[in-house]
Amino acid sequence: MFVRLTQQRLTTVCALALAACAPATESDPLPSWNDGAARTRIVEFVRQVTDSTLATFVPAPERIAVFDNDGTLWAEQPIYFQLAFALDRVHTMAPEHPEWSTQMPFSAILGDDREALAALTEHDIVEIVTVTHSGMTVDEFQTAVADWLATARHPRFDQPYTALAYQPMLELLDYLRANGFKTFIVSGGGIDFMRVFAEDVYGITSEQIIGSMGKLLFEIRDGEPVLVKQPGIDFIDDKEGKPIGIARIIGRRPIAAFGNSDGDLAMLQYTAAGPGAQLLAYIHHDDADREWAYDRESHIGRLDRGLDAAAERGWTVVSMKSDWRRVFGFE
Amino acid sequence: MFVRLTQQRLTTVCALALAACAPATESDPLPSWNDGAARTRIVEFVRQVTDSTLATFVPAPERIAVFDNDGTLWAEQPIYFQLAFALDRVHTMAPEHPEWSTQMPFSAILGDDREALAALTEHDIVEIVTVTHSGMTVDEFQTAVADWLATARHPRFDQPYTALAYQPMLELLDYLRANGFKTFIVSGGGIDFMRVFAEDVYGITSEQIIGSMGKLLFEIRDGEPVLVKQPGIDFIDDKEGKPIGIARIIGRRPIAAFGNSDGDLAMLQYTAAGPGAQLLAYIHHDDADREWAYDRESHIGRLDRGLDAAAERGWTVVSMKSDWRRVFGFE
Repeated sequence: MFVRLTQQRLTTVCALALAACAPATESDPLPSWNDGAARTRIVEFVRQVTDSTLATFVPAPERIAVFDNDGTLWAEQPIYFQLAFALDRVHTMAPEHPEWSTQMPFSAILGDDREALAALTEHDIVEIVTVTHSGMTVDEFQTAVADWLATARHPRFDQPYTALAYQPMLELLDYLRANGFKTFIVSGGGIDFMRVFAEDVYGITSEQIIGSMGKLLFEIRDGEPVLVKQPGIDFIDDKEGKPIGIARIIGRRPIAAFGNSDGDLAMLQYTAAGPGAQLLAYIHHDDADREWAYDRESHIGRLDRGLDAAAERGWTVVSMKSDWRRVFGFE
Repeated sequence: MFVRLTQQRLTTVCALALAACAPATESDPLPSWNDGAARTRIVEFVRQVTDSTLATFVPAPERIAVFDNDGTLWAEQPIYFQLAFALDRVHTMAPEHPEWSTQMPFSAILGDDREALAALTEHDIVEIVTVTHSGMTVDEFQTAVADWLATARHPRFDQPYTALAYQPMLELLDYLRANGFKTFIVSGGGIDFMRVFAEDVYGITSEQIIGSMGKLLFEIRDGEPVLVKQPGIDFIDDKEGKPIGIARIIGRRPIAAFGNSDGDLAMLQYTAAGPGAQLLAYIHHDDADREWAYDRESHIGRLDRGLDAAAERGWTVVSMKSDWRRVFGFE
């Protein structure tokens, strides 16, 4: 085919010019990573799959790296940030819902009743998420998320939530992409929520984000087609859902996978079952001073079976305390 | 961030070298398209969105083009090719299913009973697809599809099915990608089926394919995780399902959409509702000599409401007979 031939010829003609423009290799692409086993493993893996003289070389289209989001790319304490959005959203929506002032769980949120909030059941949370995440178009929902991200502050750090992206992971995403990788988010979080900030914060475009999905309805309103977010969940991108989401949306097994909880274990197992060089890594929250310290007993981001699997199988465990020179960009 | 700065500097330094390597504009990227309204509209649209001096310019990450598959990128007569695979697969699987010899609809397939085959109900077809598309891992299924594609021949043209991709559309895909577009398939066909050939035939990578999806189960078998295709459908990527699939998987409204049937109408409407320059097009099967002629009355690929919408809204209708110099590459 004509265009293909043209591009092939151009490739040859321009190889020299492009080679001269390759990034200078002596610069440090991972300045927020301390020297140590994790950093060494990352750099070694990238060399293994990008050096075309090695048997472990992987062609660029197959260089797929997947990342959990909450607790892996940004923080997830004291509550998942999407839940913080939902709670704030209940306040914003309250004037249209006078009945909420006496109706649990909304009354607890509106009255800032800490005790009642701490006792919220899973059923309560589903109700809160349903009310704040359905009954509007996708565009309307994303405008609400963008407005919230622009003003809300994290309670501990008094920073915008997006500032709680981990600086070493931002560098890692850039480093992998500079080495021909496609970087995907594979998160239990809502896909419409993440797409509002992931491109700006992580440099990950909308079609490389996999997340949980609510039901959608296609409707013609006043002659214009709109997509309306419905109550009810169509796909939960967590645990066994993660490899399923990867198989469906990426359609190719990753060669690198990063997570921080047991919810990521199936994704790491699925990645590990492929052939060739792989990078499997858990981010371990062990730095209560700069971030938080939690693993086997935590309600949020529990990492228990995953720690055992990592030890058994020789996966990389990234210590936030010792492997990361800097945790957040604002430090 | 470090890598971003580096890339920015490189962009400046290398701009001249790269500009010198840009494809020669005087060559014809669409040699199988006759001069005419359709071709003119395509070329004009690409100029509108890629010329940064125009108000209609669209940045590259937003240049999303979506294509139906059956009847738009390759032929769909006398039966959908995926159904041809399923029928052949029944023959392949028959030795393990002696009961099929007396059991409809399988007995009709195995006995090549044309009359009974022509009378297959939707329920029969669901049963045939279920039996041939579930109960194996995704990898096993895709091996079966690859084996079939390597040997099966189209009954009219005596060519491999993949040779029935439309040459003008292959050129169009290349042309759009050479102009910074991402090209997505958005098809009612099965996603696991299309991924076997779409990369080779269309140059479309697995993560840019949206299709109908069966249920998947994640299982650990002999210590290895596998994804097993289950009976039952999770998502039908047809009609209103197409904009829903686009919203979920691409997360961004396309600026160009190509279809050939009423099943693509919602996708074209959804694309048309966006701002700025757009290319909306129907491929019209009006060439019984070189391909087939069918539209408003056809069981396969019915184009009825879509033709009306195209006339009303000024969408492009591509006549296979007059707009295409060549239909198939083997001609």
